[in-house]
Amino acid sequence: MDSLELLEEHRLFNGWQQRYRHDSGSLNCAMTFSVYLPPTADDAPPPLLYWLSGLTCSDENFATKAGAQRVASELGLALVIPDTSPRGENVPNDEAYDLGQGAGFYLNATQPPWDRNYRMYQYISEELPELMHSHFNCNGRQAIAGHSMGGHGALVIGMRNAAQYSSISAFAPIVNPSQVPWGRKAFSAYLGDDETTWRAYDSCALIARPGPKVPVLIDQGDNDQFLADQLQPARLAELARQHDWPLTLRIQAGYDHSYYTIATFIEDHLRFHAAHLGL
Amino acid sequence: MDSLELLEEHRLFNGWQQRYRHDSGSLNCAMTFSVYLPPTADDAPPPLLYWLSGLTCSDENFATKAGAQRVASELGLALVIPDTSPRGENVPNDEAYDLGQGAGFYLNATQPPWDRNYRMYQYISEELPELMHSHFNCNGRQAIAGHSMGGHGALVIGMRNAAQYSSISAFAPIVNPSQVPWGRKAFSAYLGDDETTWRAYDSCALIARPGPKVPVLIDQGDNDQFLADQLQPARLAELARQHDWPLTLRIQAGYDHSYYTIATFIEDHLRFHAAHLGL
Repeated sequence: MDSLELLEEHRLFNGWQQRYRHDSGSLNCAMTFSVYLPPTADDAPPPLLYWLSGLTCSDENFATKAGAQRVASELGLALVIPDTSPRGENVPNDEAYDLGQGAGFYLNATQPPWDRNYRMYQYISEELPELMHSHFNCNGRQAIAGHSMGGHGALVIGMRNAAQYSSISAFAPIVNPSQVPWGRKAFSAYLGDDETTWRAYDSCALIARPGPKVPVLIDQGDNDQFLADQLQPARLAELARQHDWPLTLRIQAGYDHSYYTIATFIEDHLRFHAAHLGL
Repeated sequence: MDSLELLEEHRLFNGWQQRYRHDSGSLNCAMTFSVYLPPTADDAPPPLLYWLSGLTCSDENFATKAGAQRVASELGLALVIPDTSPRGENVPNDEAYDLGQGAGFYLNATQPPWDRNYRMYQYISEELPELMHSHFNCNGRQAIAGHSMGGHGALVIGMRNAAQYSSISAFAPIVNPSQVPWGRKAFSAYLGDDETTWRAYDSCALIARPGPKVPVLIDQGDNDQFLADQLQPARLAELARQHDWPLTLRIQAGYDHSYYTIATFIEDHLRFHAAHLGL
């Protein structure tokens, strides 16, 4: 069993906000993540909602800014909030904000120098769930959500592992990374020039596959500066319609790409997941 | 009329989170502050709740971390969130976190080099209300709240200006700055060695004065690392009892000095103020 080091702990809405460090076997570096345990966690093992953050974020942005713990406390839902990439002096990096540390894109890199550490897909879908279930009292049910790059991650990981996640939600996700500047830059570096390998990490490709369909909720602000060039969630909504995938896309008038939008609608997302998690 | 420069604006809980810059006549420097306008602000002029932050904070900590806007939106309450001191290259500073920029202590300094800029008492109690009422549609009623150093500020400004504020609340306030290390250091520097001048900025002295009594709500975590040495709100609660001041002190088991405590109980504070503001 991997060891976890508790870095900090705060009482919050009658539960506990905690921050841990551990050595990740997937990523070959030390990683930090945050957890919120609802007050009922000791008596009734909670399900887990994984939150994947966007470019430049760490595990702290969602923990401090979204206000999600109020509703998680009420519902008896635990939150798991990982970092957005491997980290450290020995981990390859890039000067740009959208490549390297803080920009893992939730995939398993195949190209040097990234391939030794940048395996966030494996970390989120395998290592972190195993770690959670071996160290915390949880009921085995899971859902996944995220913002922007993390919305992409939630869609890809949730769609490819339908047996593991009861529901998926996203704020302003990068739904078609193969076709937009953020995704093309990252996928070229991490996965190489053969674009057929990119399809495994593109929700617009995954949604056309046969197999079980995990329900999806997406919120998108229409005042989001990245909407036209990087996001375009209507592409995924149209494909969902064609393939009978249960997906709800809500366009929120006046809202932007910031955490203020997440704070406004996170309660709806948690209640959506709670219904599918059997809470 | 002073001019206001809108720096940013975000849709939030159907209202607006805004950030402004203006030239402050009290502080002789440019100042930044944040405002939350509830969705009803255009139709029904809202009352104002001023939030005073603690040491090292700016106007952004409460705006991003407390989750107060959800309840402010529901209640039709506007939030005004100033910075914690004058700022800028031409403003005197100190290397310590508890003196100079970020540590204005909500008083009018009388000692050089601080006296030209460090006039936060005047800024909060006079200049900012005038600015708000000349630029925003508000109903004239006000309340005041704060955290730690800002809890001290809310108590002092509210108690000394009972006609202006309908209610006062604080998280982990420095109630007796004349007698604790943070306060003694700051008051010595800003006000000088004559401790009789400190009493005008010490809620434990002000509470014994005759005059109108503004109702007070205080939340204090019992796991707060600063409780014993810097805060000790029970001193103020005992004086309130002796002087028939309507003050409720709640000790919150397990909670610490962080914004997680504020996030947990801010809804109670907003509803307390709303009742006194006639909402």
